[in-house]
Amino acid sequence: MKDEVRHVPIKDIIMPHDDILQAIYQVILERKANPSDRSYTASLMTKGIDKILKKVGEEAAELIIAGKGGDRQEIVYEAADLFFHTLVLLGFSGIPPEEVYAELRRRFGTSGVEEKESRPKENG
Amino acid sequence: MKDEVRHVPIKDIIMPHDDILQAIYQVILERKANPSDRSYTASLMTKGIDKILKKVGEEAAELIIAGKGGDRQEIVYEAADLFFHTLVLLGFSGIPPEEVYAELRRRFGTSGVEEKESRPKENG
Amino acid sequence: MKDEVRHVPIKDIIMPHDDILQAIYQVILERKANPSDRSYTASLMTKGIDKILKKVGEEAAELIIAGKGGDRQEIVYEAADLFFHTLVLLGFSGIPPEEVYAELRRRFGTSGVEEKESRPKENG
Amino acid sequence: MKDEVRHVPIKDIIMPHDDILQAIYQVILERKANPSDRSYTASLMTKGIDKILKKVGEEAAELIIAGKGGDRQEIVYEAADLFFHTLVLLGFSGIPPEEVYAELRRRFGTSGVEEKESRPKENG
Repeated sequence: MKDEVRHVPIKDIIMPHDDILQAIYQVILERKANPSDRSYTASLMTKGIDKILKKVGEEAAELIIAGKGGDRQEIVYEAADLFFHTLVLLGFSGIPPEEVYAELRRRFGTSGVEEKESRPKENG
Repeated sequence: MKDEVRHVPIKDIIMPHDDILQAIYQVILERKANPSDRSYTASLMTKGIDKILKKVGEEAAELIIAGKGGDRQEIVYEAADLFFHTLVLLGFSGIPPEEVYAELRRRFGTSGVEEKESRPKENG
Repeated sequence: MKDEVRHVPIKDIIMPHDDILQAIYQVILERKANPSDRSYTASLMTKGIDKILKKVGEEAAELIIAGKGGDRQEIVYEAADLFFHTLVLLGFSGIPPEEVYAELRRRFGTSGVEEKESRPKENG
Repeated sequence: MKDEVRHVPIKDIIMPHDDILQAIYQVILERKANPSDRSYTASLMTKGIDKILKKVGEEAAELIIAGKGGDRQEIVYEAADLFFHTLVLLGFSGIPPEEVYAELRRRFGTSGVEEKESRPKENG
């Protein structure tokens, strides 16, 4: 039954170390595979890349507003929104978060904390 | 010696399950505590909230451009940039990533994957 | 009567040279003075600065998406949205567009087209 | 001679009613036609659409930060930056600002100030 398939207990999804980002990514993939699902995530997947990118922009704007406002709870809330919608973009694009982590590991090195700028940034 | 303090071997920072986001957050806190450090992160901390928020906006714009362009490697790269600068904002604000994860866990529940919209979003 | 006051014929608002941005700015000021108005603009004014700034962010994201997509009509549409919401921000802040034009004139000079960078931009 | 062609006196470019946006747009087109020019605008044109869109995103972020901060001069400055880079995008795309104004006129009507939402916006 569709609902049973969809509502996998999160204990079967969440990683041993309780990696919530990975768990959410699994939910996103599941929603992507079930576009008729009435969830918010499935709706984003159906609407497509423009809608997802628009949400990334919106959430970034809201995080900037919250950050400038300095309200701690707002920052937490908007950072959660931004992480979530970035994961939706990754899911839509078929990119596991692990690839993003690998890029971060590459920059920050494995033998020390010294960050490495991976490419020159142009002047503003 | 300053350098020895700063260059903590990453094996002492990285969590048992190799949580790169947490490791980077620790680096950010370390940089924040050593503002004279010449690293990019220390420079962001010294420049302050406006500069950090500007970077969040820039990286979100670059992720949108990459997402619309559809180049997988660009998306990975820009998502890494956006995660990193969001962590810098959290570090600057004294907010552990765990608080953001807790917010995400609250929304996605602990007994099932059904996402919960935590508050109504207004119409565009 | 309120409605009569509000619905000033645009021929009385529009400047001799048909400056639509200035005309819209006048509409925005009128809406600001009549917050009970049911128009979209009055609603933005009532919701306040965070909502207005969020819209600026949204419209910028949509313009970026349109620009990357390369659809001419979409670019026109989203640029109009961005101009409009920037004018709303100016109206909310009590800043006449003329002040923005004066800043642009200052940068571009009055005796020649050579643009002047008015302040150094930091590196990314 | 190239310089003579490029440095058209602004009195020949600026419209009778001193339309600075139109004058800047003409400068942008001139720079586009002279990519070897060492100006900032010519450099944007040469770098291409991604760089221009990135700047639109940056300036929108800076306007949001300024708007939330409430410093009037900062808002003027960043609004000028955003107008300018939007004009650069229009110039790059070969779209005269007049097309954007026509879209705004269409929405705001010609017989009254009542704004018209031209298309439904989706829910966030």
